Amino acid sequence: MIIRKKEHWFRMLFIWHGSVLPQLLPRLFALFILSFVIVYLHGIIFSFKVPLNPTPLTLFGFVLALFLGFRNNASYDRFWEARKLWGDLLNDSRSLMRQAITLINTTNDDNFTTSFINMLSALPYALKHQLRGTNAREDLLIRLDEAQFKTVSQAQYKPVIITKLLAVWVQQARLENRIDSIQQARFDENLDKLENVIGGCERIASTPIPYSYQVLLHRTIYIYCFLLPFGLVDSLGWLTPFIVVFIAYTFVAFEAIADEIEEPFGTESNDLALTSMCHTIESALLELAGKPVEHLPKQDARFID
Amino acid sequence: MIIRKKEHWFRMLFIWHGSVLPQLLPRLFALFILSFVIVYLHGIIFSFKVPLNPTPLTLFGFVLALFLGFRNNASYDRFWEARKLWGDLLNDSRSLMRQAITLINTTNDDNFTTSFINMLSALPYALKHQLRGTNAREDLLIRLDEAQFKTVSQAQYKPVIITKLLAVWVQQARLENRIDSIQQARFDENLDKLENVIGGCERIASTPIPYSYQVLLHRTIYIYCFLLPFGLVDSLGWLTPFIVVFIAYTFVAFEAIADEIEEPFGTESNDLALTSMCHTIESALLELAGKPVEHLPKQDARFID
Amino acid sequence: MIIRKKEHWFRMLFIWHGSVLPQLLPRLFALFILSFVIVYLHGIIFSFKVPLNPTPLTLFGFVLALFLGFRNNASYDRFWEARKLWGDLLNDSRSLMRQAITLINTTNDDNFTTSFINMLSALPYALKHQLRGTNAREDLLIRLDEAQFKTVSQAQYKPVIITKLLAVWVQQARLENRIDSIQQARFDENLDKLENVIGGCERIASTPIPYSYQVLLHRTIYIYCFLLPFGLVDSLGWLTPFIVVFIAYTFVAFEAIADEIEEPFGTESNDLALTSMCHTIESALLELAGKPVEHLPKQDARFID
Amino acid sequence: MIIRKKEHWFRMLFIWHGSVLPQLLPRLFALFILSFVIVYLHGIIFSFKVPLNPTPLTLFGFVLALFLGFRNNASYDRFWEARKLWGDLLNDSRSLMRQAITLINTTNDDNFTTSFINMLSALPYALKHQLRGTNAREDLLIRLDEAQFKTVSQAQYKPVIITKLLAVWVQQARLENRIDSIQQARFDENLDKLENVIGGCERIASTPIPYSYQVLLHRTIYIYCFLLPFGLVDSLGWLTPFIVVFIAYTFVAFEAIADEIEEPFGTESNDLALTSMCHTIESALLELAGKPVEHLPKQDARFID
Amino acid sequence: MIIRKKEHWFRMLFIWHGSVLPQLLPRLFALFILSFVIVYLHGIIFSFKVPLNPTPLTLFGFVLALFLGFRNNASYDRFWEARKLWGDLLNDSRSLMRQAITLINTTNDDNFTTSFINMLSALPYALKHQLRGTNAREDLLIRLDEAQFKTVSQAQYKPVIITKLLAVWVQQARLENRIDSIQQARFDENLDKLENVIGGCERIASTPIPYSYQVLLHRTIYIYCFLLPFGLVDSLGWLTPFIVVFIAYTFVAFEAIADEIEEPFGTESNDLALTSMCHTIESALLELAGKPVEHLPKQDARFID
Repeated sequence: MIIRKKEHWFRMLFIWHGSVLPQLLPRLFALFILSFVIVYLHGIIFSFKVPLNPTPLTLFGFVLALFLGFRNNASYDRFWEARKLWGDLLNDSRSLMRQAITLINTTNDDNFTTSFINMLSALPYALKHQLRGTNAREDLLIRLDEAQFKTVSQAQYKPVIITKLLAVWVQQARLENRIDSIQQARFDENLDKLENVIGGCERIASTPIPYSYQVLLHRTIYIYCFLLPFGLVDSLGWLTPFIVVFIAYTFVAFEAIADEIEEPFGTESNDLALTSMCHTIESALLELAGKPVEHLPKQDARFID
Repeated sequence: MIIRKKEHWFRMLFIWHGSVLPQLLPRLFALFILSFVIVYLHGIIFSFKVPLNPTPLTLFGFVLALFLGFRNNASYDRFWEARKLWGDLLNDSRSLMRQAITLINTTNDDNFTTSFINMLSALPYALKHQLRGTNAREDLLIRLDEAQFKTVSQAQYKPVIITKLLAVWVQQARLENRIDSIQQARFDENLDKLENVIGGCERIASTPIPYSYQVLLHRTIYIYCFLLPFGLVDSLGWLTPFIVVFIAYTFVAFEAIADEIEEPFGTESNDLALTSMCHTIESALLELAGKPVEHLPKQDARFID
Repeated sequence: MIIRKKEHWFRMLFIWHGSVLPQLLPRLFALFILSFVIVYLHGIIFSFKVPLNPTPLTLFGFVLALFLGFRNNASYDRFWEARKLWGDLLNDSRSLMRQAITLINTTNDDNFTTSFINMLSALPYALKHQLRGTNAREDLLIRLDEAQFKTVSQAQYKPVIITKLLAVWVQQARLENRIDSIQQARFDENLDKLENVIGGCERIASTPIPYSYQVLLHRTIYIYCFLLPFGLVDSLGWLTPFIVVFIAYTFVAFEAIADEIEEPFGTESNDLALTSMCHTIESALLELAGKPVEHLPKQDARFID
Repeated sequence: MIIRKKEHWFRMLFIWHGSVLPQLLPRLFALFILSFVIVYLHGIIFSFKVPLNPTPLTLFGFVLALFLGFRNNASYDRFWEARKLWGDLLNDSRSLMRQAITLINTTNDDNFTTSFINMLSALPYALKHQLRGTNAREDLLIRLDEAQFKTVSQAQYKPVIITKLLAVWVQQARLENRIDSIQQARFDENLDKLENVIGGCERIASTPIPYSYQVLLHRTIYIYCFLLPFGLVDSLGWLTPFIVVFIAYTFVAFEAIADEIEEPFGTESNDLALTSMCHTIESALLELAGKPVEHLPKQDARFID
Repeated sequence: MIIRKKEHWFRMLFIWHGSVLPQLLPRLFALFILSFVIVYLHGIIFSFKVPLNPTPLTLFGFVLALFLGFRNNASYDRFWEARKLWGDLLNDSRSLMRQAITLINTTNDDNFTTSFINMLSALPYALKHQLRGTNAREDLLIRLDEAQFKTVSQAQYKPVIITKLLAVWVQQARLENRIDSIQQARFDENLDKLENVIGGCERIASTPIPYSYQVLLHRTIYIYCFLLPFGLVDSLGWLTPFIVVFIAYTFVAFEAIADEIEEPFGTESNDLALTSMCHTIESALLELAGKPVEHLPKQDARFID
């Protein structure tokens, strides 16, 4: 995720990092060349004048705007829902941590609680690695004890197995009469919420926006941009390449951003900063439990992962 | 559901599978021929020049864009709500499984739990077959025991009968004092959520978007496409058929996709992969219960059911 | 509600039943005649040429599209919320039924349960009649016993009185120790949800979209349609009446559908099939309770009430 | 709130009451005069021809439509959320009433229950007066007993103090063993919901749509309407004043309605009928408690408060 | 937040405070000068006539309107969600306060309750300072006792530590048998809601709208405004600078407002009045607890913080 201070409105016009412009340059350059050639030939290809004018482009603009708007809203909703789910992960973890400290009827048994903290801090890392398809081994190894690690590392759905271990911890507390059934029920409700968070992330990761939409919108945008210079050459003359590239930039960049945030768990520059959120959750839990928080060196880059 | 890796932007322009283009080709071809004839006759029919120009098409574009946007949003909402309901089915099943393992006050009785797992894994299959109107017999037979199968297979609303059997299992656990009333209440809350999932799917399956909308939008799009060549022939000349087909393709394809995902439980290429989700839920439950998961051969096709 | 199989795209263009076209024909015919006269007079009224052109119509199109879109979304949201509420009615009824069977700690007392089923099946009918302003007497008489019928039939808010009777049933079960307080609390939560469903339906039925919106939109559409032939006659000539009627049809039909589904509890052709949903709920409850379900003869009409 | 039967489509064009037209007449008349003068002078002011044409008006139309749409949706959402909150008030009151009757373990003590009914019926009135900034004294005096009235009337947040009194009633029932803790918890959950309703209404009443939006939109609309006759005079001639007033009417009326429903607790003609809803809640509670309902004379006016 | 009475529609056109106009004046003035120069040179730069006309500006208008609409909706959603979270903070605080008074089974111990009130009133201040990055020391010092202050002031996430202290208070009440587990569970549910509020605010504060969107939209608007005079000079003549500045004002102001409310916890003029809401929550809690409320002097300024 890109974190930047607000810039002056004028300097913001020339920002390079954080814009999707760099990755689009080759395509836009190709379009510029094409437009230039079309202007040079006055829109004539193989001695046929291409009789395109802005009228069909206007007709077309309606449905294109509609299309882009839909795609964009759907993508942003996915992005924001994903962010909400990770927010809920923080909230639920804090609630469970608070319960582990204050719903207990006996004096605090530090070892017992520590085991709970470890599992709860390991959970976001396990989820992150599952969503990104990376190897969770290292992150789990330093947080879980041996038995826990063994159980979790064999599993396909690691975060869910951790919630099961948390539930076993609660069950043990119940059997040892540290808590009664009612307090167990409160824990259990928050464990249900954890399942919802995990399942929600899996849902977003496994179900893209219907593929036919993506194909159709992609085609429509690119063909539209390809037709633009023919339609504008008669009225704009030598200005055509500049205006065409400007319009095309906006359309194509819009689609490119939507494409990026549609899968919010990736590592592209507008995706969610999962690693950073894992650290936040972990240090929030440690602070809540009164443990020393290892302050991470602030990432001073503009881009956080 | 179509599962494809991200393609290069250029190759994506020429994708055939996963696009709705193939099924629309005959209609678009007919329109191409029509446009061609209109160009040939200079828009004259029975020696009357059709005095259509782009103005009314523009006026019309507003309401058409509006219409398509509405239809499309409504369809996508249905699709995504359906996906959420199946996601909730996974989450609730996992929660119930976790509860069956950890809310028990006595030592685990493996037979007793196995019966719970069986019913819970059979539920998504029963739901899938109900929603698609197919025969659930085979999928239920290998998962349920004889008595259960008999009860379930006679019922019209099979998934609901399974939730009842789950509740009877919980009641039995209560009567045998494996759990107390509070723990029973926790199970019961999650069973309520299962009813909501099942009922939600039935709602989407049984209530389409009001029929008059579909008829009106369908007519509007096709008449609009029919008028397009008359309106554009004067200004576009020999380019008319190509532009008309391109514009029509976008409109018609947009409607076709909306039509497909409106009923998300079908088996068309953009519908939800219910069978695959059933497998996911089943293997997630087995893993959670510590049972061996029979790894399904990965479907390597681009299309999963 | 209109239930039709998907038609071939071509046949769908000529559907009569299920379209709102029939009821709009007189207005559209009047507009056709008007346009015809205007074409005949070349847009001259009382020897004044009406100097209208498409420009203001375009300016106007923006706000009209906006308006229609808003009205339409608001209407559809009401329709879909109403459908969701009736879906929740089914879900809650099933949950309560399941609870009546499985949260009981003693052996099943069939008479006692039957009384619960009767009240629960009578509830949707009572709600339907309240929402439609029809007489519930007949439907209640065959489902409730004498004492219940007497209490309910005197009430103004019949469905709410039924939830009270259900709560009294639960209270009695509590006093007879069939259930304990915790189980009573679970029933009580689902009764709360029933109140929400009933109150939600009453809300939609009693609060229309602000009246001034309806008046303003109605006026705008009809005046727009009236101005259309004047604006188009110069450029379209003899084609004017056809194009005008086509555009007007779309606008007016759009408003007519929005108007119909805005009050989703009525009996117009796009309204919700309340009677049919009452039957569904009743038979779902009977099946769940293991009672014989009287299979209703399938309505083979395309229109279900 | 305006309550009118559906009118015939033709008569609806000429409705006066319920339309916002009357209050806008002076502004529209001023615009008519202005347009008339502009037509008379052929758009020349101080011997300068104002060279405005429809092009910039079209460019501008985009952002204006956008703006109006946003404002309108935000206002309607506020209106509808407010209505939902009052609907929830009815639902929660019914639920609490039902609980007061059926969660009690002892024989009904009528005096005790009556006190509960009184406080619950007084609550909506107290809320109404708080939201409208009017004096609640009279409505509270006839519903509360002396001690209650004294406590409530001194408070700034009267409805919240009533929920506290309700909670004290529940606490007393608990201490007298009429209910146990679990039943108390069920009451308490519904009291939480009451707080949400009250707080939700306070939120809508205290936080308007950001003021800068209102100013910007207001200015944009009026300047646009002022420019309209200059832009249209060349092409429309003597028709200009009529068309301009028609377009302006729609824009200005749209904003006026949005402005009215934005603060849904007021007493303008499209605001919520709070007084009428208070009566509904009160009579619903009395009926539920089996008390005689004093049937209010039906308001036969078209406008209910 | 700006609080102003409704103005007469005419006076509202000339409002200065509360409009974003002042901060935009320099940019608009620069654009005015540019347009003026362009008119003077008849659109010729370095003896090249810039052949721009309104056509590409219209094409462009579609996507710009789309873009602005999206940005604006996303920003307003953030603003309104933030307001809802603070509303929930009020509701939950009231609920917890009510519970601290009425869920207690013993006679009220005023000292014990006072400690609860103090922590609960300190919470919104702690949250405000965390969200604004300001120093909470002073506000906490006068509300918390010494031990509490020491614990809270060392923490990074102060509001969460306060919820933990609240939970410890509840635990103590449980251990001293003032409440039983069921009543503790009710408190615990509301503490969970507090975590959700706190975490929700943190989410909005830490996750802006994806940066690339902001850059792209910003660029598009400013380049569009820069091109406007070239496109309009031929048809508007000497009127160009006025019309251009008017159109640009609307676009730029729209973006500026969206930019302001996107981060609703700041201190800009359209941001949420957090300080004022803290006071409201505190006095609401004191009134509920029957403590004397120190009436704050009404801020009579039009702008509240």
